[in-house]
Amino acid sequence: MDPATEPADPTAPADLAIVNCTALVGTTTPRAQFAPGATIEIRDGRLSRIDANPLEPVRAREVIDARGMVAMPGLINTHSHAAMTFLRGAAEDVAVSAWFNDYIWPMEVNVGERDVYLGTMVAAAEMIECGVTTFADHYFFMDEAARAVVDSGLRANLGSAFFSTQGDDGLADSVAFAERWSGAAGGRITTCIAPHAPYTVNDQHLRRAADEARRLGVKVHLHASEDIAQARSSITSRGLTPIQVLDETGVLDAGTIIAHGNGIVDDDIPVLARYRDRVGVTHGPKGYFKFALGPITPIAALRAAGVPVGYCTDGVASNNTMDILESMRVAAITQKQIAGDATYFNAGMALDIAGPGSAAVLGQRGALGELTVGAHADVILVDLDGFHCQPVHDVAAALVYSVQPSDVRTTIVGGRVLMRDRQLLTIEREPLLAEFRLRSKEITDRTHGRSIQDYTP
Amino acid sequence: MDPATEPADPTAPADLAIVNCTALVGTTTPRAQFAPGATIEIRDGRLSRIDANPLEPVRAREVIDARGMVAMPGLINTHSHAAMTFLRGAAEDVAVSAWFNDYIWPMEVNVGERDVYLGTMVAAAEMIECGVTTFADHYFFMDEAARAVVDSGLRANLGSAFFSTQGDDGLADSVAFAERWSGAAGGRITTCIAPHAPYTVNDQHLRRAADEARRLGVKVHLHASEDIAQARSSITSRGLTPIQVLDETGVLDAGTIIAHGNGIVDDDIPVLARYRDRVGVTHGPKGYFKFALGPITPIAALRAAGVPVGYCTDGVASNNTMDILESMRVAAITQKQIAGDATYFNAGMALDIAGPGSAAVLGQRGALGELTVGAHADVILVDLDGFHCQPVHDVAAALVYSVQPSDVRTTIVGGRVLMRDRQLLTIEREPLLAEFRLRSKEITDRTHGRSIQDYTP
Repeated sequence: MDPATEPADPTAPADLAIVNCTALVGTTTPRAQFAPGATIEIRDGRLSRIDANPLEPVRAREVIDARGMVAMPGLINTHSHAAMTFLRGAAEDVAVSAWFNDYIWPMEVNVGERDVYLGTMVAAAEMIECGVTTFADHYFFMDEAARAVVDSGLRANLGSAFFSTQGDDGLADSVAFAERWSGAAGGRITTCIAPHAPYTVNDQHLRRAADEARRLGVKVHLHASEDIAQARSSITSRGLTPIQVLDETGVLDAGTIIAHGNGIVDDDIPVLARYRDRVGVTHGPKGYFKFALGPITPIAALRAAGVPVGYCTDGVASNNTMDILESMRVAAITQKQIAGDATYFNAGMALDIAGPGSAAVLGQRGALGELTVGAHADVILVDLDGFHCQPVHDVAAALVYSVQPSDVRTTIVGGRVLMRDRQLLTIEREPLLAEFRLRSKEITDRTHGRSIQDYTP
Repeated sequence: MDPATEPADPTAPADLAIVNCTALVGTTTPRAQFAPGATIEIRDGRLSRIDANPLEPVRAREVIDARGMVAMPGLINTHSHAAMTFLRGAAEDVAVSAWFNDYIWPMEVNVGERDVYLGTMVAAAEMIECGVTTFADHYFFMDEAARAVVDSGLRANLGSAFFSTQGDDGLADSVAFAERWSGAAGGRITTCIAPHAPYTVNDQHLRRAADEARRLGVKVHLHASEDIAQARSSITSRGLTPIQVLDETGVLDAGTIIAHGNGIVDDDIPVLARYRDRVGVTHGPKGYFKFALGPITPIAALRAAGVPVGYCTDGVASNNTMDILESMRVAAITQKQIAGDATYFNAGMALDIAGPGSAAVLGQRGALGELTVGAHADVILVDLDGFHCQPVHDVAAALVYSVQPSDVRTTIVGGRVLMRDRQLLTIEREPLLAEFRLRSKEITDRTHGRSIQDYTP
C-alpha cells in the first residue's frame, strides 16, 4: 500500500490538532458552509478528523487553539512563474507586447540557476504569508525551483518551460525534469510537461509533449488563448483557435492546465467540455486588467460546461503579488460586473473556485482545496478579529471581500506548520533578501541587447 | 491672523521630525516623484520642512526614524458612511434595489445615536490602520460621528444627511449641524450640507441646500447619477439628467461633492466643467462592481475637463472595507481595462488621484493630499520591506499594486501620531468592539417590517 494513502492509526494521538476554530467545511451552492467550534486532527500529513463535537476528546501531540479564527483549506495558485519576483515592478503600465519584447524577455537573458532559487524562495515566503499552500509553477532552471519547494515546505506542481526555438532539447529537458522530481519532497512535488504556448511551440513538439505527459501520467501546463488577439491571430494564420490546436495535437486529451484562456471563444467551450475530467482553466484577473486585455476568461460558460476554473497570480512581473485572496476578490467583483448581475459569483462560489475548483484544475480534487478526512493537511488559520472584518455577519463575505493577507496567522502544509502567528519557520528572511535584492538589480540590465524570445503570437 | 495659517517660528525646534524616509514629493505626470533620504519637520500641525539635505541639521522634540519606509500624504476617503461598519456583510451579493429596500433601509430603522458613535469609531480605527487620515462622511446622528472624529483624532468633512420625506426638518438639521461643528476639533472638522440625492430630495430642498451652503461657505455633498439607471430614470421623468438637476437648482454653483457619478453622460461633462473649481466626483469602484452597475465613473473625461476625481469607499455595507489603498488599486486596474490601454492610469496618476485629486474634491487642494510646506501634517509611513513588495524596482508601482494595508506602520494627523508601528494610540480596542458587536446583531433585525425610505429612483 502506498504510504501516502495508508490510513493512520486512529487510536494513536494525532500529530497536530486545531481546536475552537470556525471551519470552512463546504462550498456547495448557494452558500458556503462553516462549522463553528470545530476540531481538526492531522495524522501523517492528512486530515483525520473534522467535526464540531465537543464531547469527543482531542488527543494530539500538539494543539493549536484557533479561537476567533477561521480554518480553511490552504489556497492554491494554479499558475505562476514564482521566480519572477525579481522582476516585480520592472515593467509597469505597458502593453503586453512591450512588456515581453522591451522588458521581460531581454531581462530574462540575465537569469541564472541561483536566481531561480532566490526568486522562488521569496515567492514562497510571500505565498506562505498570504495562505497559499500549493502552487503550479512554469519556468526555467526548475531544479532550483524544486529545491525552493523542498526548503520552504510548500506543495507544488512544477514544469520546466520550453520553446521550439530550443530545438528538441527543451522538450527533452522538460520530460527529464518531470521524471526526476515527480513525487519528491515526500510527495509534495508533482510535475507536468510545460510547453510555453502554441505560439512559441510547434505542433510536433505539442504532440510529443502530450505523448510524454500520457506516458508519465502528468498534465501539460501551458499558456493558450491568453487573450482574444492570440485567438484571432491563430484563426487567421491556421484556421484554428489555440484551443482547437490543443485538441488536434492531443494536448487536451493528455490533460491540461490552460493559462489564461481569456481568448476562449464560444466554439471552444464544447471542445473543452469533452475533456472536463482532465482539463482546467486558470484565472488571474488583476494582471489581465493591468494589460487591458479586453474579454476575460469566460468563467460562467466554462463552469456551466463542467470545466474546472481555478485562481492564479501568474508571475509578479505582471500581477505584482502572489496573493490568491486578491485574485479571488478581483474575480468576484469583476465577474459580477461582466455578468451584469450582482447576485452572480457570490462569496460561496468565490470560495468554491478557491478550493475544489482550483484543486480540480491541478487534477487533485478531493486531495487539496477542501477540509475533508483523507485530504492533505494543508490548512490556514485566518483571523477575523481585525477592525476591518468586524462585525462578522457573513463569514464567507468576510473572507472574500474584507480580509487582508496579513490576517492569515498560521499556514500548515501536510501537517507541518510553515508559519505560526505570522512567524515564518522555514525561511530565514535577511540573508535571502540581501542576496535577492542584489541580483534583482543586475537582472534588469538590458544593455546586452539580446532577448530570450520574440513575442509575435 | 488665523492661528491655523500663522507660520510657526522657524528657529524653534520642530514638534516632530521624520528622518531617513523616501518621501512622495510629487505626482505630476508622467511619473510620481520620490525623494530618498528625506527629512520632514512638523510645526503646529503643519509641514514646515521637506527636503533631502543631509547637511541641514534636524531639530525636533521627537524624531521618527523611517528608514526603509515611504512617507506619503495621509489618504483621503472622499465619500463614506463610516458608521455603517455595523452592517458589514449584512447584505451581500444582491442588486442595488434589494440592498436598499430589503436590507439596509429596514435595518437602519434600528440605528440610534450611540450606534453612530460606535460604528464611526470602528471605521476610524480601520481607517487609521490603513492610512486614511481624512474622510468625508454623510450619515445620520452626525453629532455622534463628530464626537468620534474628536476622539479618534482623524480629520473629517461631515454632513448630516436628509430626505425630503422629513419635511423641512431634515434640511434645517443639516444646516444646524454644519454651523455647529464647522472648525471644531481644532479645525480638523469641516462640514457640508448633505441632501441624500436628487431622487430623494426635491428641487425646492436642493435649492435651499445650495443657498445655505453658499451662505456658510461649505459644499453640498450628495449622491447623484449613481448609476446609468438613475440617469435614464431622471431623463425619462423630467427631461434632465441628475447633473442637470444639480445645475438648475444651484447645487453645482454652491460647490459639490458628487457620489458616485457612474451615470454621468457625455452631455454632463461640459456642465460639470463650468464648475470645476468647486465640484468634484468621488469614485469607489469595488462597490460598483459588486453591484454590477454597468458603466463606471467616466474618470478620463472628467479629468480631461479639469473636474477633480477622488477615491472613496462608500459605506462598508457595500464596499466591505474603508481601505483607500484598495479603492486606488481597483481603480487603477479597471480603468486600464475600460480604456483598453495598459499605459493609461499609470501608478503616478493613481497616486495623483489619491493625493491632490481627492483633496480637490473636498475643496482642500494644497492643504491636504500632498507633502508640501504649509500643508496639514497628515503623513503616513509605509513599510515596503515585506516579501510581497520586494524588490522595489518602482516605488509608485509598489504603493499602487503590491502594498497591503498592514504595511502602513504609522499614521499622523495634524502632527499627532494616531498609530505608531501598528499600535492605535487614540482608540481602545476591546471595550469598543464588545459594545459594537452586540449592537451590530441587534441592528440587523428586520422583524419590525418598517423602512427609513423606499428606493425608487
